Amino acid sequence: MNEEKGNISIHTQNIFPIIKKWLYSDRDIFVRELISNGCDAISKLNRLAAIGEAKVSDDTKYSVKVKFNKDKKTLKFIDNGIGMTSEEVKKYINQVAFSGAEDFIAKYKDKMDESNQIIGHFGLGFYSAFMVSDTVEIETLSYIDGSEAVKWICSGGTEYEMSGSDKSERGTTITLYLNEESAEFLNEYKLREIIQKHCSFLPIEIYLEDENPKEDESAKDKENKNEDKPLNDIHPLWMKNPKECTEEEYKQFYKDVFHDFKDPLFWIHLNVDYPFNLKGILYFPKLDHELNTIEGQIKLYNNQVFVADNIKEVIPEFLMLLKGVIDCADLPLNVSRSFLQNDRNVTKISKHISKKVADKLTELYKKERETYNNFWNDINMFIKYGCMKEEDFYDKVKDIIIFKNTEGVYVTLKEYLEANKEKHENKVFYVDNEKQQSQYIRMFKENGLEAIILDSKIDSHFINFLEMKESGVKFNRIDSDISDTLKDTDSKDENKEEIEKETKTLEDLFKNILNNDKIKVDVESLKSQDIPAVILLSEESRRMQQMNSMFPGMDTASMFQNEETLVLNRKNNLVKAILSKNNDESKKEDIKLIGEHIYDLAMMSHKQLDGEAMAKFISRSNRILTKLI
Amino acid sequence: MNEEKGNISIHTQNIFPIIKKWLYSDRDIFVRELISNGCDAISKLNRLAAIGEAKVSDDTKYSVKVKFNKDKKTLKFIDNGIGMTSEEVKKYINQVAFSGAEDFIAKYKDKMDESNQIIGHFGLGFYSAFMVSDTVEIETLSYIDGSEAVKWICSGGTEYEMSGSDKSERGTTITLYLNEESAEFLNEYKLREIIQKHCSFLPIEIYLEDENPKEDESAKDKENKNEDKPLNDIHPLWMKNPKECTEEEYKQFYKDVFHDFKDPLFWIHLNVDYPFNLKGILYFPKLDHELNTIEGQIKLYNNQVFVADNIKEVIPEFLMLLKGVIDCADLPLNVSRSFLQNDRNVTKISKHISKKVADKLTELYKKERETYNNFWNDINMFIKYGCMKEEDFYDKVKDIIIFKNTEGVYVTLKEYLEANKEKHENKVFYVDNEKQQSQYIRMFKENGLEAIILDSKIDSHFINFLEMKESGVKFNRIDSDISDTLKDTDSKDENKEEIEKETKTLEDLFKNILNNDKIKVDVESLKSQDIPAVILLSEESRRMQQMNSMFPGMDTASMFQNEETLVLNRKNNLVKAILSKNNDESKKEDIKLIGEHIYDLAMMSHKQLDGEAMAKFISRSNRILTKLI
Repeated sequence: MNEEKGNISIHTQNIFPIIKKWLYSDRDIFVRELISNGCDAISKLNRLAAIGEAKVSDDTKYSVKVKFNKDKKTLKFIDNGIGMTSEEVKKYINQVAFSGAEDFIAKYKDKMDESNQIIGHFGLGFYSAFMVSDTVEIETLSYIDGSEAVKWICSGGTEYEMSGSDKSERGTTITLYLNEESAEFLNEYKLREIIQKHCSFLPIEIYLEDENPKEDESAKDKENKNEDKPLNDIHPLWMKNPKECTEEEYKQFYKDVFHDFKDPLFWIHLNVDYPFNLKGILYFPKLDHELNTIEGQIKLYNNQVFVADNIKEVIPEFLMLLKGVIDCADLPLNVSRSFLQNDRNVTKISKHISKKVADKLTELYKKERETYNNFWNDINMFIKYGCMKEEDFYDKVKDIIIFKNTEGVYVTLKEYLEANKEKHENKVFYVDNEKQQSQYIRMFKENGLEAIILDSKIDSHFINFLEMKESGVKFNRIDSDISDTLKDTDSKDENKEEIEKETKTLEDLFKNILNNDKIKVDVESLKSQDIPAVILLSEESRRMQQMNSMFPGMDTASMFQNEETLVLNRKNNLVKAILSKNNDESKKEDIKLIGEHIYDLAMMSHKQLDGEAMAKFISRSNRILTKLI
Repeated sequence: MNEEKGNISIHTQNIFPIIKKWLYSDRDIFVRELISNGCDAISKLNRLAAIGEAKVSDDTKYSVKVKFNKDKKTLKFIDNGIGMTSEEVKKYINQVAFSGAEDFIAKYKDKMDESNQIIGHFGLGFYSAFMVSDTVEIETLSYIDGSEAVKWICSGGTEYEMSGSDKSERGTTITLYLNEESAEFLNEYKLREIIQKHCSFLPIEIYLEDENPKEDESAKDKENKNEDKPLNDIHPLWMKNPKECTEEEYKQFYKDVFHDFKDPLFWIHLNVDYPFNLKGILYFPKLDHELNTIEGQIKLYNNQVFVADNIKEVIPEFLMLLKGVIDCADLPLNVSRSFLQNDRNVTKISKHISKKVADKLTELYKKERETYNNFWNDINMFIKYGCMKEEDFYDKVKDIIIFKNTEGVYVTLKEYLEANKEKHENKVFYVDNEKQQSQYIRMFKENGLEAIILDSKIDSHFINFLEMKESGVKFNRIDSDISDTLKDTDSKDENKEEIEKETKTLEDLFKNILNNDKIKVDVESLKSQDIPAVILLSEESRRMQQMNSMFPGMDTASMFQNEETLVLNRKNNLVKAILSKNNDESKKEDIKLIGEHIYDLAMMSHKQLDGEAMAKFISRSNRILTKLI
């Protein structure tokens, strides 16, 4: 073929149906688009008035009104903004995707301050009206003195009609003649819900009005609807200077936006100008203690227009456990404004937010350690999750991670290791169930040892993470091992042979009493004399058992059975008594009762007894008590 | 102004940049669009060959090849499909949004069978190439005999150049000269990942090839890459007739798609032609018992092209706990194909899927009750959640909801109520922690009573739901109340006065022993003589306590304290002994020990003792045991 050059063409009849019907994934969006067009029209007029290019009377009350009429099946969007001349209608309405907003910004860019609040961008939003209506009408009167009002109407297809209008007030009214499938948008509650979702913080007051209320609605009903109150908050708290916001305002805003009746713990007000424009407030919520879960919500805004919740590209995943609002005018949104384009700026924003959070936490830790300690229960899950999700975050906060110890004191890992390095170097003892492990805790306390409490769901993962990060440090559950500190070192002088003999006797005796040949029995001299025995399970075995129960398909269960060791305390009077009366036939029954009970009591401190074991224990207790009386 | 009519116009220079850059929210999408164009080109040729309008040699091996070249920074999409004449390039490429697919379907609609596999729809997909490249080149040779090959090139803007090409094989090659920001798409793993995400089940074989592999890559490495094996499965299992699929195939497909090493429990193969086209497989996964949570994933396809995971409009929320694939060619997708339009059909699809699931469960219950029982542990959470989320679903499955009772037998609510109506009409006793409540269970069993086990997280909500739905039925935890059946009715003849006196004595005694004036003490004659006492807490008080702990802000805590009642068993020997030796000063210490122990043992069966109480209990046990020997 011959060489040929030309221009790619897009025919209106091909693309217009796509724009009208398919561009937006959510039909509700037309409300947002038409309201934000109205806001833009007002913002433009405002701007022109500010630079002396338009005259506006001082008492002008700007607003966008949404009026629905159930009888006529119409929905009107009325603004008292800049309006359009017939030339402008031809330019901006008859030419799809010719953005009036871009045009305006280009024209006045020298006279605009940086933070222009013009929402429009692509020049496509208006056509979303056709998603819900076949016929759309515009009536508009420009702010320019001597302008003629214009009426524009399009009833499906690409054909329009323009004529004069008797509209006498400046601004634009868009009337949608809703099609049959869109009757739902004549419902006041539906409209209110949509407006509150997308437009709650638009900078111009929005009102909703029923043009044709049913007669049986009493005047009182109308009053209750508060029609004089706009549906939106035109000065959202995040736009204010942090210095001018009171604690009460932060709390109220939180309650209003997130419908949480509990106060937040604290918050971070983000206010960045460079290298991108970012404002917002992140709240640390109080945990729901019963459920022990965090369900965050980060609402993303673009120039006060709601974009979406929990956008993972902008908000680091772990921050989604918080509640908050982020407004970033520099976001690269796609046409339908609900989704983000891939963009390197987005990664930067995400990192910046994450850094700000680490800074705030560090500041709190350094300046208000007491408060920080008190918050720990509510924020620890968030911080631990963040550390495991984001290396940078861990590096920033690793020195402010604290642990509550068995004395109720909060310590850092460093502090714990330092304080205990003589007793057990690089070894951290922890408790994951205070009630269950109370016996061990008591033993620890009596001997001046400390363990830390790690009882939230995330902790078993966090332990693994810390062991990987802080090489050499090893976490051991409190019932995994007997620290030398717990042992009575004086007894080291004792006759070794005798101890071995005792151990052998006790081992045989307990194997016999418990009718279990495989049980491991050990004998130690513990300082806590009133404890007859404890059960130990090595940290490794316990973790393997745990892993095993998570992957029931793996056939390693048999390898890790019976790893528990019964450690008897030679210093305890019961153990001594058993040992001394071991050969007394008349005491045989009692010794069996005592032996079984010693084992059950030790087991009970180690884990919950199963039904059968508990039944046996209670029945045996009954028998023992009967002997008393 | 004068009346004026005209046509809305869309200028290419306005809309083209938007289509190129902003239409798709995700840059990866261009891969999917260009591969599916290639598939369409082949499907069309196939169709024409089938109706005798094109000649294709029998040994043609159709494929779409993706070739990347790191040095040249190009990415090629090569198909051996229908190709284009220069006229067709002008029509379909130079005119944006003029859909070749629509055109093809319109032209051949009489000769096509219903299930056309043409993916294209809007005629916009090709231009997504410009999201990642400034220059895009097409070389194409039509299937029509004597056609001339054509080359088309566009380097940004709207200008194109066309000329002849020396391409000698039928089909189309699209070459993308990637821009700098898009170098990531020259990475083999990245490309493979994108293709596997979006194109795993496209109906034409897809191959990925490195045009310029590094020389140090040994031949062996290349072999391992299995370049002869397509990246996709062109006959996904869901497209097959359910009768032709084997159990092994279903399991393998599940493991391949969801990367779960455990077999699924069972599955439902959906195959609907009317009123919409819907195919798919829903799997019931085996629960992860340790975590006891379900994390489902429903992948949605449109003509074998992946749309998105877990689309809430199509898949009822509770079904997202399952794992599965749904392919529906009738979905109203938006232009970027990742989002659904609002559409009434969508609601119908959702309802249909939900109904099919209920049908399958009912069939299983009726035909294979044993299997159903065995699955219950894994599926109950899903069914209960479904009932609470969807009224229709509850109505369909309410008679197949089963409960495991304390005998290990599965019964329906009706069966339970019927079997127990003499003993406690409309009252369901349940256990929510078998270990903890083992004492009560034993008491129930000894007296021929049954309770049901309701120990999953969802059950406390489900109980409320059932009480609301099945009016009159009341659920009581096993430790909330003593059924009359547990009481020794013979003792009714006993002297009332004496009982009252005994009660008073025991009440005073226990208040004194426990040093607690407020404790409620009750005395009953229980048939189980070896139980000295139980703790009861009324169902109402327990639920209020529970609710209370969920909303710690509410100040009702004080209202529901100390609601537990200690019920002493007059028939028990210990209680009798205490009563008879109450005035014996020499026994005072022993009676105190016994009383405290009776209370602790009863409490232990009711809830876990706290650390201090447990320490006291163990120390007291020690003292008691010492007295024995």
